[in-house]
Amino acid sequence: MRYRAKISYLGSAFCGFQVQPRQRTVQGELTKALSRLFASPVKVTGCSRTDSGVHALDYVILIETEDTAPFIPPLTLPQACLPFLPPDLSLMEAIEATSDFHPRYQAVEKEYVYRIDNGRVPNPMHYQRAWFYSRKIDEERLARMQKASAYLLGEHDFTSFRTFDNNAINSVRTITYCHWERDGDTLQFTIRGNGFLYHMVRIIVGTMLDVAFDRIAFEDIPDILRAKDRTKAGQTAPPEGLYLHKVKYLDDEKAL
Amino acid sequence: MRYRAKISYLGSAFCGFQVQPRQRTVQGELTKALSRLFASPVKVTGCSRTDSGVHALDYVILIETEDTAPFIPPLTLPQACLPFLPPDLSLMEAIEATSDFHPRYQAVEKEYVYRIDNGRVPNPMHYQRAWFYSRKIDEERLARMQKASAYLLGEHDFTSFRTFDNNAINSVRTITYCHWERDGDTLQFTIRGNGFLYHMVRIIVGTMLDVAFDRIAFEDIPDILRAKDRTKAGQTAPPEGLYLHKVKYLDDEKAL
Repeated sequence: MRYRAKISYLGSAFCGFQVQPRQRTVQGELTKALSRLFASPVKVTGCSRTDSGVHALDYVILIETEDTAPFIPPLTLPQACLPFLPPDLSLMEAIEATSDFHPRYQAVEKEYVYRIDNGRVPNPMHYQRAWFYSRKIDEERLARMQKASAYLLGEHDFTSFRTFDNNAINSVRTITYCHWERDGDTLQFTIRGNGFLYHMVRIIVGTMLDVAFDRIAFEDIPDILRAKDRTKAGQTAPPEGLYLHKVKYLDDEKAL
Repeated sequence: MRYRAKISYLGSAFCGFQVQPRQRTVQGELTKALSRLFASPVKVTGCSRTDSGVHALDYVILIETEDTAPFIPPLTLPQACLPFLPPDLSLMEAIEATSDFHPRYQAVEKEYVYRIDNGRVPNPMHYQRAWFYSRKIDEERLARMQKASAYLLGEHDFTSFRTFDNNAINSVRTITYCHWERDGDTLQFTIRGNGFLYHMVRIIVGTMLDVAFDRIAFEDIPDILRAKDRTKAGQTAPPEGLYLHKVKYLDDEKAL
């Protein structure tokens, strides 16, 4: 049996999605919970790596169980695994996966949200859920961040906006949407694209704040992209403000 | 020196506001932090008791320090006490208090918000921040809750909606606003009044859910009020969904 499911998790107490020895990971906790539920080995495949402390809403996974496992109808899977999952991780929905479904290779678009708590002192409600950044981002600074992020739209080589790893040889990605908005003392950045490199959203957000405070000029973003040099971009924003928000597939209308 | 200040706290790890021996309380943590800052005894007075697990935004306190304490201008107090406070408690703003100011006796209106996570499984983002209630509250049930809560508007004796304690002899209170709204899988109840008795909002919310699921008829609310009998009302909703949201004073325009 193969299930296509959506999970949500609060990343603060996880060492990211991917299983690692002796670490509490989302994939590890899921595999453990589902193996207890099915009383047989279960394989969980994710749609994306997320770093320690990064959160996810409607993250898509593939669950594969042995044919000998007791049959659990997909509709009842969320309730069925509830007793086995910790409070910072839930399986929200499940359907039967088509035989060719793969959560990573078939994702056509991802949306990330990044939250900044820009109050004078940290709002306890945002603890571990936003980047507390106390220097006031006024309208003028926000306008510069907005202009800087507009340069990212379209197809670019994002070598300057990645931490190098061996997972992606091709560093060309297409950004289809990015926008900053303010809600009281909170700033929220939404970005959508066909894929994201390691640390890419966090480096983009960090660079936008360097633009806000004149450490980088907004009109230099095209040059930074062209340089293909990580040292030309700005700081890496911390993980606690980042949310993998949505993952889109071609067959979404028929599916979840 | 007397400061009038606004604090916010996430109630999950506090045994309520009021200081108690050997318990972690908001008043206790505040008094400890401020006494370290001023290096002299500090008295903290709150605007309301809150139970273990109940949250607060813009909760108003009075801080009284000895004349011999180093003078800290009210505007800088939030930053000054930041290093001494835990991440689940912040002092957001402060001004100098008038000589007659008392945060409890002079409060003219309080607003509470109660949040219900009504998804099929608990949303990890709402863990300890909403009441997870999995039975689906559809439009019809919500309409009944709306009608039931409308009966609470105006001046009533709320004996049926309180847990008896010795703190309030008079159980007559005036409710000026109450409303349920839905935002996706979240239900939010907002209630304003000139004062609230012990457990009053939690008993009101619990009773509204009893109305939703036909354990109490909505048109019986006036009789329940008239009975002045706690056993006639419904269940007490758990603390994690409750937020003290706003406290109003007559001089608010001139003050915070």
